[in-house]
Amino acid sequence: MANPSGILSPPRHDALSKAVGAERFAADLAPEGCLHAGAFRPGALLGIAHGRVRGVDAAAALAVPGVLRVLTAADVPGTNLQGIIHKDQPVLCGEVIRHAGDPVALVLATSAEALRAGLAALRADIEPLPGVFDPEAALKKDAPLVHQGRKGGNLLLGAVIEKGDARTALRSAPRVVRGEFSTPVQEHAFLETQCGVAQLLPDGTLDMTVSTQAPFRDRFEIGQALGLDPLRIRVRAPHLGGGFGGKDGATVQCLLGLAALNASGRPVRMAWDREESILAGYKRHAVRLRCALGADADGTLLAFTCRAFYDTGPYAHLGGEVMELGLEHAAGPYRIPHTRIEGRCVYTNNPIAGAFRGFGVAQVSPAFEGLLDELAEQLGLDPLELRRRNALTRGDVNCAGVRLDSSVHLVECLDTLAAHPLWLGREAWQAEAPACTRRGVGLAAVFNGMGYGRGLPDMAIAKVELTEAGDFLVYSGVADMGQGNSSAFALLAAQELNQPPGAVRLLQPDTALCHPSGSSSAGRTTYTFGNALLKACAAMRDKLLARAAMPLLRDTLEGLELVAGAVRHAATGKTLPLAVLARYLSRDDRICVADFLMPVAQDPPDTGRAFPIGFPHLFFAYAAHLARIEVDELTGRVRVCDYLAITDGGRVLDRSCFDQQAQGGVAQGIGFALIEDFQLRQGLIRSRDLSTYLIPTALDVPDTLSLAVEGDEDTGPRGLKGVGEVGLNGPAPAMAAALHRATGVRLRHLPFTPERVLAALKQRKTPSRRRA
Amino acid sequence: MANPSGILSPPRHDALSKAVGAERFAADLAPEGCLHAGAFRPGALLGIAHGRVRGVDAAAALAVPGVLRVLTAADVPGTNLQGIIHKDQPVLCGEVIRHAGDPVALVLATSAEALRAGLAALRADIEPLPGVFDPEAALKKDAPLVHQGRKGGNLLLGAVIEKGDARTALRSAPRVVRGEFSTPVQEHAFLETQCGVAQLLPDGTLDMTVSTQAPFRDRFEIGQALGLDPLRIRVRAPHLGGGFGGKDGATVQCLLGLAALNASGRPVRMAWDREESILAGYKRHAVRLRCALGADADGTLLAFTCRAFYDTGPYAHLGGEVMELGLEHAAGPYRIPHTRIEGRCVYTNNPIAGAFRGFGVAQVSPAFEGLLDELAEQLGLDPLELRRRNALTRGDVNCAGVRLDSSVHLVECLDTLAAHPLWLGREAWQAEAPACTRRGVGLAAVFNGMGYGRGLPDMAIAKVELTEAGDFLVYSGVADMGQGNSSAFALLAAQELNQPPGAVRLLQPDTALCHPSGSSSAGRTTYTFGNALLKACAAMRDKLLARAAMPLLRDTLEGLELVAGAVRHAATGKTLPLAVLARYLSRDDRICVADFLMPVAQDPPDTGRAFPIGFPHLFFAYAAHLARIEVDELTGRVRVCDYLAITDGGRVLDRSCFDQQAQGGVAQGIGFALIEDFQLRQGLIRSRDLSTYLIPTALDVPDTLSLAVEGDEDTGPRGLKGVGEVGLNGPAPAMAAALHRATGVRLRHLPFTPERVLAALKQRKTPSRRRA
Repeated sequence: MANPSGILSPPRHDALSKAVGAERFAADLAPEGCLHAGAFRPGALLGIAHGRVRGVDAAAALAVPGVLRVLTAADVPGTNLQGIIHKDQPVLCGEVIRHAGDPVALVLATSAEALRAGLAALRADIEPLPGVFDPEAALKKDAPLVHQGRKGGNLLLGAVIEKGDARTALRSAPRVVRGEFSTPVQEHAFLETQCGVAQLLPDGTLDMTVSTQAPFRDRFEIGQALGLDPLRIRVRAPHLGGGFGGKDGATVQCLLGLAALNASGRPVRMAWDREESILAGYKRHAVRLRCALGADADGTLLAFTCRAFYDTGPYAHLGGEVMELGLEHAAGPYRIPHTRIEGRCVYTNNPIAGAFRGFGVAQVSPAFEGLLDELAEQLGLDPLELRRRNALTRGDVNCAGVRLDSSVHLVECLDTLAAHPLWLGREAWQAEAPACTRRGVGLAAVFNGMGYGRGLPDMAIAKVELTEAGDFLVYSGVADMGQGNSSAFALLAAQELNQPPGAVRLLQPDTALCHPSGSSSAGRTTYTFGNALLKACAAMRDKLLARAAMPLLRDTLEGLELVAGAVRHAATGKTLPLAVLARYLSRDDRICVADFLMPVAQDPPDTGRAFPIGFPHLFFAYAAHLARIEVDELTGRVRVCDYLAITDGGRVLDRSCFDQQAQGGVAQGIGFALIEDFQLRQGLIRSRDLSTYLIPTALDVPDTLSLAVEGDEDTGPRGLKGVGEVGLNGPAPAMAAALHRATGVRLRHLPFTPERVLAALKQRKTPSRRRA
Repeated sequence: MANPSGILSPPRHDALSKAVGAERFAADLAPEGCLHAGAFRPGALLGIAHGRVRGVDAAAALAVPGVLRVLTAADVPGTNLQGIIHKDQPVLCGEVIRHAGDPVALVLATSAEALRAGLAALRADIEPLPGVFDPEAALKKDAPLVHQGRKGGNLLLGAVIEKGDARTALRSAPRVVRGEFSTPVQEHAFLETQCGVAQLLPDGTLDMTVSTQAPFRDRFEIGQALGLDPLRIRVRAPHLGGGFGGKDGATVQCLLGLAALNASGRPVRMAWDREESILAGYKRHAVRLRCALGADADGTLLAFTCRAFYDTGPYAHLGGEVMELGLEHAAGPYRIPHTRIEGRCVYTNNPIAGAFRGFGVAQVSPAFEGLLDELAEQLGLDPLELRRRNALTRGDVNCAGVRLDSSVHLVECLDTLAAHPLWLGREAWQAEAPACTRRGVGLAAVFNGMGYGRGLPDMAIAKVELTEAGDFLVYSGVADMGQGNSSAFALLAAQELNQPPGAVRLLQPDTALCHPSGSSSAGRTTYTFGNALLKACAAMRDKLLARAAMPLLRDTLEGLELVAGAVRHAATGKTLPLAVLARYLSRDDRICVADFLMPVAQDPPDTGRAFPIGFPHLFFAYAAHLARIEVDELTGRVRVCDYLAITDGGRVLDRSCFDQQAQGGVAQGIGFALIEDFQLRQGLIRSRDLSTYLIPTALDVPDTLSLAVEGDEDTGPRGLKGVGEVGLNGPAPAMAAALHRATGVRLRHLPFTPERVLAALKQRKTPSRRRA
């Protein structure tokens, strides 16, 4: 995508290797002589989302030439349970399948063809059980239980975040708007599906290369599930061909590990095809919300209540944590004295839900922003002005009760939007709609928390090495799933070390060489690892100046400086090449390791106690989005003509990466809002591949104009904040607002497919001509 | 020696291993199948201190069974020159021997016996050359040259340190005292003579274990002399059986390296016997000084001039640097507005001089303190009061022109001495002398610079490792020559890490594992390396608290603390054993490396320009010493009855090690003052072993009472300063003062042997009864 901001940036560190196809992703690996492993998922074949496993018949499969092993739950040596927070997801299901993608057997074969034939020859005897497919239904007293005998039944987690007395305040509020909203399952649809290779080495090390967002944590998941010492597991995470949250947690990991344990030392490859990826991968939680917003007649927000239901599917995975973010953001980036936000995260027999960019927040932004738009309409206020009047600023207490001692520049985002021609010219543009076309301009103000929040240390450990050759190697502890953190790290290191970009190389995470730095998620990697890296580089600079003192015969470090490839004494001009200096230092002295721990909210509010992990956050990215759309009156099809994303992500380090994050988030958000229609029936996926599950193409997405409001976040590396998620939260509410402007109808249930838009058009023939 | 201070200290870290004989010194090493190497030094055999090498006849030696090789200068592959600052000392002399200990051949044999026989069978044809044996004579125009064709002749270095206009001030001073003083060669006489083992490994590494004070620097000496890559040389320095400066520089190193290059991969051992150690080892520079001190009638010091001659022997070694310290200290620890101190360091054909505890300073303290005593006598002033009145305090500009922005507590030392019963009761004690015995009480105020001074970075690099077992390993970068720095390091680390002493182990320097931290010299190791170590340990503490955050589920480091063997969260009492934590950290993250650079004098005075390295110093240890002696009128023998050393070494870290340093320095100083009588005639050593070169025994040295004046040095680790050298500078002037009190005679030429004392007694039959 072009960069309409027109600001030049250096090329991304990974641009060339990816452009020429030289970068090696996990999917590219197929070691000589490797075995192929695949999971047998009979639910989808038998049309059963919940069922008792009565048996697996492997005889025909084992008779297939090249099929070496068929493993079942009985062959799993450990707990056979995976899960980041709660361990409730079997590696192989032995007794029950809880969704249509649950695996009951693992096949090892000498070729991909043999594997396919083996999988096709497998038979399973599954007795259907009654299932639950709606979270509210699943909470009913006599609902079938997804986990038999589980205390708490199908309720994974119920939680409340509360400030003041919202119910009372709402009762007495002069104006109240209410509504029910819903957002659907969303598929990550990364280019590179879940995949990896594994090998059990003679020394007992389980050596894996996986497309994963959390290589360090993976070791513990695998270790526990398979009964292995996690520290004997080595996980490498090369560049990912997309992640978006869908590779945060075990996908192929435990299955691959199990396969490697049964491969007599041979390497094993597992790569899900697109259908398996859609069937078995984690998805965005479908959410239903019922909200009410109360305000004064002048638009001052008074109270907000919300009840949200998150459908986590059959396994906990990150369900509680995704809902936490949702509840924390449900009242929007505004000052509201009274809030009460309740949520229930519920087990069903739908596909497994998990992390997805906009983690819980993309699901709530349409509701809050939708109500706010409605309120503006009722009050006869400019929707932008209404937002501006209530927008959080630094020092405010947000809706979750946290005082914002961090950078908050939402007002500046809104002001930038207010002054933009796309906004100023909206009425004229709308009025000029062609025949059979309606035009609408909508806006949204959104935000997204950064980092893990309280309860877990959001920490990174960076290492930088002066190589023997005299250049620098950065050991990344966090995977690059495509968001470009590698490029940011290389740039930060080069700047801090005052070296040309080519002097810094980057090693992608490898648990044997790099250091645990948490997952690539939560908009945290550039902030947390970047901070650690700056510390490591500063320590390296100080070290090298100190080490050069003796060869340069300096008795103080005064006047010594790092220059390209050398240490220089400014006054005398004497230089010592780093390649020479490096020879004199043993490796222990050529590395610098530094850590950084993200600050957390001090004196957190006494609410959200159901969230021991994740609540609350202290740092947020903010954004104001604007969409100009055209609606085809005949087909209901929505075309996004222009999109403007104005983002407060702190100081911008690399303008092109910054814009790419905003643009990528918007593209995915447009898909979420308009196009992606995940079809489920009784837990069975009907949109099983990319021919039926449509995602936006370049033709569906305009050249998104990305603007930055640069306010330093004091704690950030070079003042930046994580900016990877906020962009996804804006399109849905901006589309809803634009659609309302175009059609006069408020759409509250995503996606806004042509069918739904057409229905709305039919419902109200005359478009609203009030304020956009 | 008992600790009369009565203050209990924990046992030295190295006490047990040394007491039970378990500590392995370099001298203990004789690897299975090792060869034995020895140097052939024909000058001593032939009675030639300066001569031309006409040939070496190895035939008879090579015929000795077990003798494998006889190597000469022609076999040395590199420059064949060693020397720390100036490379002028051949490894093997090919053309000229410049002192009686110069080696001309190196013998390799399969046994010590074969080696001895081989050396005995060697013959050299040496043509005597005229020699120079007195530095002043050596400066005469027609003196024979030690280095033919050398620009500058026999003058290694001439230098002046000047402040104000001393000559003019002296001319107008109301009182002037003058005198010529001299101090002799002193032999280090360490228990463990120069020794080591070396082996050329198959990968090309020259692997050496040497009794050395400067393992990291040794690599460069060896590398240059032998034409090897210094970084392919590994030097290990186990605990030394004494060093005192005599192992600061190459002794066996290059010879051993040469032997190893010719040993077909077998290990080679070289260990000098006592006679070789005395013949070929470095000695304390003999010095002659002519000084004048001018004062007001009230004892205010006005001016000081001095001209010093340092006899460096045939090679530069550290001659210039030793003289630098001497000149810098020549005017004593006093405020004197006008000083002019000249020095000449001169080549002769005497034995090689080098570093020795009290490095140049022990040679000047008798002169200045002698003149001060004489001035007190002339003015009728109490010698202590005279010193107190002129003693430096913090903020003063010292005699070399340096403003003392460092801790200076000499006045407190003098006050402590003034209040001590040994001083208060001196008249009564002197009056009670037994028959045929004269008693005297003398005092001296001394000081000693710490560190390298300007021109070279005085830097150390410490590394601490959390071992896999969960305890700590400190990688020392500086050799422990017996002064106990290991013990100090272990204590500092244990304190900083809040661990029991047993949890800290220490690795002695090994260039492959530890990091260059300079030489073990200049009273610098505990200060410089200690500071680096504290930084490394503090970083380790911070690291471990941070690493424990995730397993202890803490989102801040608040309340986390290191306790014995664990990280603990104070509020919850939850602990994480270090042995568990260590498993989770890869080695790169289990180490902390930190450096420290000793501050230097800012805006150094514009003098001493002949000293690009070493001038001036900023930090000094100070001391006031008192000696009570008895002189046998019949034999001239001096018995030291009591000795009191009051030292300002900053804050005391380990009282027992502190006292041992004071006491050891005093013992060696008593030997220097009274006993050790290095006899030279035409460059030939007549005191060739310990039966003729006498050193003090326990019976010659009283239980020295060591008191500490504890004033924090702000820049020091835990406020300490180096205290290893100052103790040696006091006994000679204190003895001279006491002898004057006892005999009425001022002795100005060390050592004060019975012969000299007896002569003095004869010279003046009536002892002085004035003030002591």
